[in-house]
Amino acid sequence: MIDALLNDREIRRAAEAARPDDDPSETLARVGWSVLIEPGDGVAGALVAELGALEALKFALAGETFGLAEKAIQEGRRRWVPRAQPRAVRDALRGAAEVDARLLLPGDPDWPTALDDLGSHAPTLLWVRGDPSHLVAPHRVSIVGARAATAYGESIAAELAGDLAATGAVIVSGGAYGIDGAAHRAALGAGGTTVAFLAGGVDRAYPVGHQQLFDRVMASGALVSELPCGAAPTKFRFLGRNRLIAALGAATVVVEAGWRSGSLNTAGHASTLARPLGAVPGPVTSAASAGCHRLMREYDAQCVTNAAEVRELMGAEVAQEVFEARPDSDHTRLWDVMSARTPRTPTELAALAGVSVERARSVLGILGLEGKVEQLPTGWARMSAKSRNGGR
Amino acid sequence: MIDALLNDREIRRAAEAARPDDDPSETLARVGWSVLIEPGDGVAGALVAELGALEALKFALAGETFGLAEKAIQEGRRRWVPRAQPRAVRDALRGAAEVDARLLLPGDPDWPTALDDLGSHAPTLLWVRGDPSHLVAPHRVSIVGARAATAYGESIAAELAGDLAATGAVIVSGGAYGIDGAAHRAALGAGGTTVAFLAGGVDRAYPVGHQQLFDRVMASGALVSELPCGAAPTKFRFLGRNRLIAALGAATVVVEAGWRSGSLNTAGHASTLARPLGAVPGPVTSAASAGCHRLMREYDAQCVTNAAEVRELMGAEVAQEVFEARPDSDHTRLWDVMSARTPRTPTELAALAGVSVERARSVLGILGLEGKVEQLPTGWARMSAKSRNGGR
Repeated sequence: MIDALLNDREIRRAAEAARPDDDPSETLARVGWSVLIEPGDGVAGALVAELGALEALKFALAGETFGLAEKAIQEGRRRWVPRAQPRAVRDALRGAAEVDARLLLPGDPDWPTALDDLGSHAPTLLWVRGDPSHLVAPHRVSIVGARAATAYGESIAAELAGDLAATGAVIVSGGAYGIDGAAHRAALGAGGTTVAFLAGGVDRAYPVGHQQLFDRVMASGALVSELPCGAAPTKFRFLGRNRLIAALGAATVVVEAGWRSGSLNTAGHASTLARPLGAVPGPVTSAASAGCHRLMREYDAQCVTNAAEVRELMGAEVAQEVFEARPDSDHTRLWDVMSARTPRTPTELAALAGVSVERARSVLGILGLEGKVEQLPTGWARMSAKSRNGGR
Repeated sequence: MIDALLNDREIRRAAEAARPDDDPSETLARVGWSVLIEPGDGVAGALVAELGALEALKFALAGETFGLAEKAIQEGRRRWVPRAQPRAVRDALRGAAEVDARLLLPGDPDWPTALDDLGSHAPTLLWVRGDPSHLVAPHRVSIVGARAATAYGESIAAELAGDLAATGAVIVSGGAYGIDGAAHRAALGAGGTTVAFLAGGVDRAYPVGHQQLFDRVMASGALVSELPCGAAPTKFRFLGRNRLIAALGAATVVVEAGWRSGSLNTAGHASTLARPLGAVPGPVTSAASAGCHRLMREYDAQCVTNAAEVRELMGAEVAQEVFEARPDSDHTRLWDVMSARTPRTPTELAALAGVSVERARSVLGILGLEGKVEQLPTGWARMSAKSRNGGR
């Protein structure tokens, strides 16, 4: 395969198009690996780390052996060789080009080095639709949970993700129905940024019902996968994808999870990676919270009940400062144009402050929660001392 | 006071009546201390430990001083002397006799040595209505929580207390409205035993609305206080009472508690005493669960969601065996007379098994939860293999 791959002019041109500044052989070797392996293939990872992607690929497909690793590599070959088709590489590059997916490789400025904590199980590349720089944003928190979520769980996921996103954290999740979707949506609703890791190619919406959500995620965040375009999500790939979510977040919070939920797998990865792990409690009568309680009991997950506690979980006081500092400009601009006597609509305030109406609504909501402003019948106003003290 | 106390014939006779086998001077000295001090008076406790109750009382009221403790003792005297009235001792003994309250002293066979872990803050005596032997039952668990409980909290408290009581644990609580009451009631409903520690004298029902509940607690368990009969509950006494609840339970479980609930005080005592502490999670949106979540976060309380987890918290595998062994007889007797084909009413089954109808109902409920029996329109039957496998 190697020669056919490196010498096929069309494929080579596609590699050059994908990464104009790079050696197309290296690009092709990386993409070559990505079509050979399933997520987290530690033998492939070790081989690439040892020899580099291109030499490792030559070695893997050439049939040579060495030393102690022989057996694992022989087994690896049995997995890899049947997939060694230049066509698969061509399709991956073509599919990515069609949807404008960027190829991110280790060493790139936007490569999230947090994933390198996965060692030989780190991905060999990432396909990204949207802005890859969000993967290296300073504050990232993974919020995951059951597809079969309750209204309670979705509302808490939205509250946490909305608050954290509004204060500058990137919300990382898996794009699934239920908790994941609620977290992504709330982040977007708060004018924040969110990253969705998919278990199949970034060209396929899975679940299909989340196509519109993924469009919005791409527009202001990123849709990411280690699988080539065209790859279907499988159970194994969902589990493999979970390790990326756990590795990218500075902390992972499970909002709702059944006793055997896949979210516990994500939590297990976070725990293995020594990432702080939080779980949201719920009624003991709710099966959808049983996994969260289990995480507290068996995985030493911290009980988290609000965004402040998630920030605490994420650690660093520095982070807290940044959280508080980052949205200041919009908060201040809106506050500056508000009055305690004359309520104004979000549209009026947005125009006065020079922010989008959406952003104005989101900031007003936060200022409202902080008790600094209030919504009156005719619009929003600064909270007066009188209404603060005379309140319920 | 001392001479007047020891030489008053009526008082001496009352002391002899209360403890016929004991030296009445010792009895009077203990009761004397109990009317002088407020719960947990560490200076009094240290003095009694050092000199014995009688000598300590003489010393405390005689005005002598010694060594380093001088200042604390002088301050203690300022608290104690104004209350040094033989009449108070007489009233305490008389009040106890009127309601048939037994005087329990350290060293008695039924004295709960668990309370001695409180050191100088241990009570100098206990007044008990009911059977004091329950205080030294092998498995005791404290279940406490907010007065302002929710339906959720009361139902969980009832479920935990009912299950634990049915399997042989003595349920210890504080007799308050809300969680405490639900725990006591469920223990009684399961045919089990429960102990209520009051913050005032055992002759006064507080809250008054729990008079009937206390009557039932006394009938099959025990109503306990370190305060003399006639003593009114005060905030300080509630807090002092909490230390006894925490000390008597092998573990303490808080079912619901507000952010500043008094139950956190009980939990703090359990924690100080190195007793395992459990907290039941609830919706993060429920103020009544905020204290429980706080206990998990700040006091390292274990998250507990069912009776099995409380048993685990209580420790010892031995305990587990006893739990499983103890109710066996009634369970077995009922199981033996049940059929998978012919459903029978609890009344019929009780008569066949030779247990009370109440007990039959309680055991049937437990066997039902265990999936061993089922309730059909015409009565209870053993769960058949078919209905087990064909169930939801």
